[in-house]
Amino acid sequence: MIKDVVFLPMGMRAPADPERTLLELAQAAGVPMVGTCGGKGQCGKCRVLPMGDTNPATGLEVGLLGQAAGQGLRLACHLRMANGGRVWLPVESRLEGQKILTAGQGGVLDLDPVVRLHRLMVAPAALDDPVAAGPRLLRALNKRAPAVDRLGLGVLRDLPKSLAQSHGNVTVIVRKGRKVTGVVPGHQGRCLGLAVDLGTTTVVVYLLDLHTGQSLAVRAAMNPQVTIGDDVVTRLTYCNQSHKQASTLSSLATECVNHLAREACAEAGVLPSEIYECVMVGNTAMHHLFLGLDPQGLAVAPYSPVESSGLKVRARDVGLALAPEARLYWLPVKAGFVGADTVALTLALDAAALEQPTLILDLGTNGEMVLASGGRLMCCSAAAGPAFEGGHIGQGMRGAPGAVERVAINGRGLKTVLKVIGGIPPLGMCGSGLVSAVAALLSAGVLTSAGAFKENLPGVRPGSKGLEFVLAEAESTGKGQDLVLTSADVAELQLAKAAIRAGAELLMATMGVPRLERVLLAGAFGNYMEPAEALAIGLFPTIALSNIVGVGNAAGTGALMALASEKARCRAESLASSMEYLELSGHPLFRDYFLDHLPFPLPIAEGSSKDAVCA
Amino acid sequence: MIKDVVFLPMGMRAPADPERTLLELAQAAGVPMVGTCGGKGQCGKCRVLPMGDTNPATGLEVGLLGQAAGQGLRLACHLRMANGGRVWLPVESRLEGQKILTAGQGGVLDLDPVVRLHRLMVAPAALDDPVAAGPRLLRALNKRAPAVDRLGLGVLRDLPKSLAQSHGNVTVIVRKGRKVTGVVPGHQGRCLGLAVDLGTTTVVVYLLDLHTGQSLAVRAAMNPQVTIGDDVVTRLTYCNQSHKQASTLSSLATECVNHLAREACAEAGVLPSEIYECVMVGNTAMHHLFLGLDPQGLAVAPYSPVESSGLKVRARDVGLALAPEARLYWLPVKAGFVGADTVALTLALDAAALEQPTLILDLGTNGEMVLASGGRLMCCSAAAGPAFEGGHIGQGMRGAPGAVERVAINGRGLKTVLKVIGGIPPLGMCGSGLVSAVAALLSAGVLTSAGAFKENLPGVRPGSKGLEFVLAEAESTGKGQDLVLTSADVAELQLAKAAIRAGAELLMATMGVPRLERVLLAGAFGNYMEPAEALAIGLFPTIALSNIVGVGNAAGTGALMALASEKARCRAESLASSMEYLELSGHPLFRDYFLDHLPFPLPIAEGSSKDAVCA
Repeated sequence: MIKDVVFLPMGMRAPADPERTLLELAQAAGVPMVGTCGGKGQCGKCRVLPMGDTNPATGLEVGLLGQAAGQGLRLACHLRMANGGRVWLPVESRLEGQKILTAGQGGVLDLDPVVRLHRLMVAPAALDDPVAAGPRLLRALNKRAPAVDRLGLGVLRDLPKSLAQSHGNVTVIVRKGRKVTGVVPGHQGRCLGLAVDLGTTTVVVYLLDLHTGQSLAVRAAMNPQVTIGDDVVTRLTYCNQSHKQASTLSSLATECVNHLAREACAEAGVLPSEIYECVMVGNTAMHHLFLGLDPQGLAVAPYSPVESSGLKVRARDVGLALAPEARLYWLPVKAGFVGADTVALTLALDAAALEQPTLILDLGTNGEMVLASGGRLMCCSAAAGPAFEGGHIGQGMRGAPGAVERVAINGRGLKTVLKVIGGIPPLGMCGSGLVSAVAALLSAGVLTSAGAFKENLPGVRPGSKGLEFVLAEAESTGKGQDLVLTSADVAELQLAKAAIRAGAELLMATMGVPRLERVLLAGAFGNYMEPAEALAIGLFPTIALSNIVGVGNAAGTGALMALASEKARCRAESLASSMEYLELSGHPLFRDYFLDHLPFPLPIAEGSSKDAVCA
Repeated sequence: MIKDVVFLPMGMRAPADPERTLLELAQAAGVPMVGTCGGKGQCGKCRVLPMGDTNPATGLEVGLLGQAAGQGLRLACHLRMANGGRVWLPVESRLEGQKILTAGQGGVLDLDPVVRLHRLMVAPAALDDPVAAGPRLLRALNKRAPAVDRLGLGVLRDLPKSLAQSHGNVTVIVRKGRKVTGVVPGHQGRCLGLAVDLGTTTVVVYLLDLHTGQSLAVRAAMNPQVTIGDDVVTRLTYCNQSHKQASTLSSLATECVNHLAREACAEAGVLPSEIYECVMVGNTAMHHLFLGLDPQGLAVAPYSPVESSGLKVRARDVGLALAPEARLYWLPVKAGFVGADTVALTLALDAAALEQPTLILDLGTNGEMVLASGGRLMCCSAAAGPAFEGGHIGQGMRGAPGAVERVAINGRGLKTVLKVIGGIPPLGMCGSGLVSAVAALLSAGVLTSAGAFKENLPGVRPGSKGLEFVLAEAESTGKGQDLVLTSADVAELQLAKAAIRAGAELLMATMGVPRLERVLLAGAFGNYMEPAEALAIGLFPTIALSNIVGVGNAAGTGALMALASEKARCRAESLASSMEYLELSGHPLFRDYFLDHLPFPLPIAEGSSKDAVCA
C-alpha cells in the first residue's frame, strides 16, 4: 500500500517519500503553502504540525522555531515523514485568504481592439463558382472589411466543418483588419479578451468582451510561484539552478493564468476558446519567467533584460489555452527592475500628461517609482527588501487573516490597540501593520528617530536581540506567544524606507524637481497602507497628507486599456521608450541619500499625533 | 518469444499479428511496397512469396494472381502469417529503384530571398548602457538593415547564450528585412532554403544556400503515401474514413520531407536547423493532406479546395524539423485538380510571356495542362486515369527496374524488340512502354485505329479477355509467364489519351486558338515518353514533332525560383490569379471532344514509321 501525506485542513495528498521534505511534497502537490526563502531553512515561516512519525528536529530548526518548537511545530523544509501521515498547516503558513487587490482606478475604456467580430453568410461553392472556401469567406467578408486578405492555418483546418455546420452562417474574428483568426458556426460567436496582471505575489485576470466593451469577470489568486520562494531573487536563484526548475516556474505561472481564465469564463458563461487576445503586464522577472526568456542577466549587474520591447507572440507558444490562433501581447518593460507593470501604471495614470511634479510609487515586492513632471518621465527601482510585505520581520506575515494591519498606541499608559485582518486574535504583522506600529511608537515617543527603543517604558523589555516592544501578550494572540516588535524589525523597516526615500529624492534631484505636488500610491501595499503613517516614518519626500492618493491596481487597469485599444498599446510603447531610467545601483549619490534618510523624522507635536495614528 | 515477419530482401521486420494482413504490417513498418488500390484486393499488384505458415488463398486472390498463384505467390492484402516467417518481395512489388526525375529546365536563379544573413558584433551590456539584449542586437543590426524592428520568441530564448558563447560575434538571419528569425554564435552561420516538389508518386527536395545562391544538394524518394494507395482518389478515400487515417497520410509525407532534408543536409555537410525558409509545390490533394486541410471537398463536385491562395505558415506547425522559426510557403493552387505544381510550371516556363500558342502538359498522376497564348493563360485538368503510370494495365508496373519502357516492332515478321529499365528480363510495362507498344503496333498495322487487334498476325492470339499481343515469351521474361498487351490494356490507354486530347482541344476552342505552336512536356512521364510515339497515338493536337519539347521537372524549378526570390513568388501569385480555369466536369462539349478522339490516328506511311518508333 502506498502511504500518503495528507495536508490539513485542505485535505490535499502527496505520496510519502523519505527522500523529500514536506515542503517539497507540498510544492509538488500544489499545496498553497508559504515557502518564503525557497526551502533554504532561513526564514522559519513554513511551520506545520505533523501527526505521525517524523525525522528528529535539527538544532537550526529549533532555533528558528523558538517557543513554537515546544508546541510540536516543525519547519516543513526540514521535516520528513517516511511513512506518511497527516500534517496541519496553521493559518499563517497557508497562502489562501490573502487580500488581493483587483480594482484599479481608470476612466471608461476606449474600445479599439486588435480583434473584431463580423457576422456573415458565406455562399456555398458550385461548379460554376468553385472558388475555394478561404477566398469565398474573404469575398463575403470584404464587403465589410475590405483589407482582410488571409486566414490562419488553424482557421482553414476547421473552415469546411464550420461552414457546413451552419449553412454558411458564421461569426468571423478578424485581427488588425487583415487576418481571419477565428471562424465559429452560427451568429452567436463572441470575441473576448483577457488582461493579466502577473505580480510576484498575486495574479489578477480581467475578462472583457471586446465586441461590446463589457467587463465580464475578474478573478485573482496567489502566484503559485510563491511556493518556490516569496521574492524575485529567490525564484531567479531557483530558476538558474537548472533548466527543469526554470520551466517549473514558468509552468506554475502559465497554469495559474489558465486556471483563472477558466474560472472567469465559467463565471461569465463563456469559453476560454472564445478569447482571441491576451495582454499581460508584470515585473521584468515575471515577464522573463513567463515567456521562457533566460533570467540570469536580471540577477547580476548591469541587470539587463533579454528583451524590453513590447512582445507579440502566439498564446499557445507560451502554453496559454485560449483560442487556437489567440495572440499574447506583453507590454514593454523598461529595465531589469522596472517592468511592464510600471509601464502599465504610466499608461493608466496618463503620466505623460501630468504637468505638476508627481511621484508614482508601486510598493509591491519591488519598489518601482516614476517621477512625472511637465511631460518628462523618469523611473527607478529601489531595492527595498521584503519588509513592506511582512518579510524578514521576526513575527511578520502576509496580509492574510490574523495579520495585524493597524496599530494605535493611546495615552500615557501606552495602551496598544490592534486591528487584525479577519477580526481574529493576531498571528503576526503584515507590512502595513509594521509601518503602523512604527509610526505609532514614534508618535508615542517609544522609538527615537534613530530607531532605538527608549528603556523603562511600559511594553518595552529586553529580548534576545536587544530591546523589543510587546504589542500583545501571549494570551490574547492566536499563537500562544507574545507578539513583539524587535529592534531588528525596526531596523529592517528603516533600511526599506530609506531605500525608497533615497530613490525618490534622487529622481527629484536628477530632474531638478524641488518639491512634489502629488504622490500616487499604486499596488496592494500602497492601497492598504495609511498615507499619514507612511509620512510619519518618512517614506516620502515632504508633501501634504491630502496630496497622497491611492490609485489601486492601476497596472491592471493599464493592461485592460491595452487590451481594449490598439491606440492605448501604442501610447504604452511610446511611454516606455520616452521614459528615462535612473540606475541606482552604483550611483555616486545614492549612498549619501540613503544614509541621510535612515533616521525616522522627528514626530509632530504630541497633541496632534494621535489623530494621525488612530485607525 | 515474439514472432516476427521478415520482409526480404530488405530484412525489415514487423511483429507477427494474426489480425493484420501482410500489407498492413508492411505499411506499419514502412516497408517500401506497392499498394496500388489501397489494400482493397482490386489491383493484384502486392504480390509476395511467403515462406512459413499462411492462411489459405481466397478465390478472389487466385483469380487476380492468375498463373502466378501456381508459383506460390500471394497477395499481401489477403495474406496473414500468424506465426511469423519470411516473405520475399519480387522486384515489381517493391517501391525502390524507381526512376525519379529531379532535374528541371530553368535559367539562372534570380537571388532575392525572403531571409538574409548578416554577420555582426554586438557590444555587451554595461551599467551605463544596460540596454536589453534584443534592442542591443537591433542597434548593431540597424546599421546595415535599418528596418529590422523585432525578434522571434525562439530567437530571444536563445539570445543570451548565443551572444555569450561568441563574445557578441553572431550570424543573424533576418526575414523580409523586418524580423530577426535566427541568431547563431560566430560568423560561420548559414542561411539555407529548401524547395520541395511533393508529387503523388515522388518527392524531390532541393537544398539551396540563400546567401550565395549555390545549389547544395538534391534528393528524391518515393512518396511513402504510395503504400496507402497509388492514386489521389484512393488516398482521399482512405483519408476520409477517419481523422487518424488523415493524419497518418499527413505524417507520412512530413516524415519523408524531413528525411530527405536530413539526407540533403548530410550530403552538403550542413544542418536542417540552418534551413530558415521552405517552399513547397504539389497538386491540390498533396497540398491539403500535407497542411492538414480537410480534403473531402476535393472528392466531390464542385471539387472546391479549402484554400487556393499562397499559404505562409510556420514550418514546425506542420511538423517540418527545420530552424525553430523557419517558415513554409506553399505556392497557390488554382483548383481542386490544378495544383501548386502547375502554378510552379507556369512560373518556371514564364508562361505569361509566351506569345505563340503553347500547350504545357504535366502528365504525372493527373493530367493538368495550361494553354498559353498572347499573355493569356487557361488551365484544366483531365481525368486520364493511371494508365500513363502503368496503372490498370494487366501487366503494368511503375517505371522501376524490369519495366519495359520502349517497344519496337520490326519487319514483316513483327519481331519485337524491348528496352527494359535496368537491362534485366522484363517484368511488366510502365506508362512510356505502353505508349511505345501501342504506337509500334499501330505503325506495324497490328492495331486498327479503333484499337482492335487484327487477327491472324504473328504474336496476336486469343486471351481471356479478347485478343492480345505477345510482347515476350515466358522464357525470356523475369516472371516465368508471357508478357502480353491485352485489348483491355489498349482500351485503357485510349480512354486516357482521349481525355487528355479532349482537354487540350477544348482549351484551344475556348481560347480561340486554331493551332499549337509548341507543346512543352513537364513531369516524369513527359520526360520518359518519346514525343513521336505520343504523337502517333494522338495524345496531342496536330503539331510538328520538332515542336514538342521536354522541360523536365519544371515544377521543381518553379519551387526553387520561389525559394530564391520573393519577386518570383509574387509572379507566381499573379500567374495563379490571372490564369483562367476551365472546368471539364459537366462541360457541355467535353463528351463530344472525348468521343471524337477515342480512335487512334491513322498511321503514317509504313516506310517512315520505323524511324519514329525505334528506340
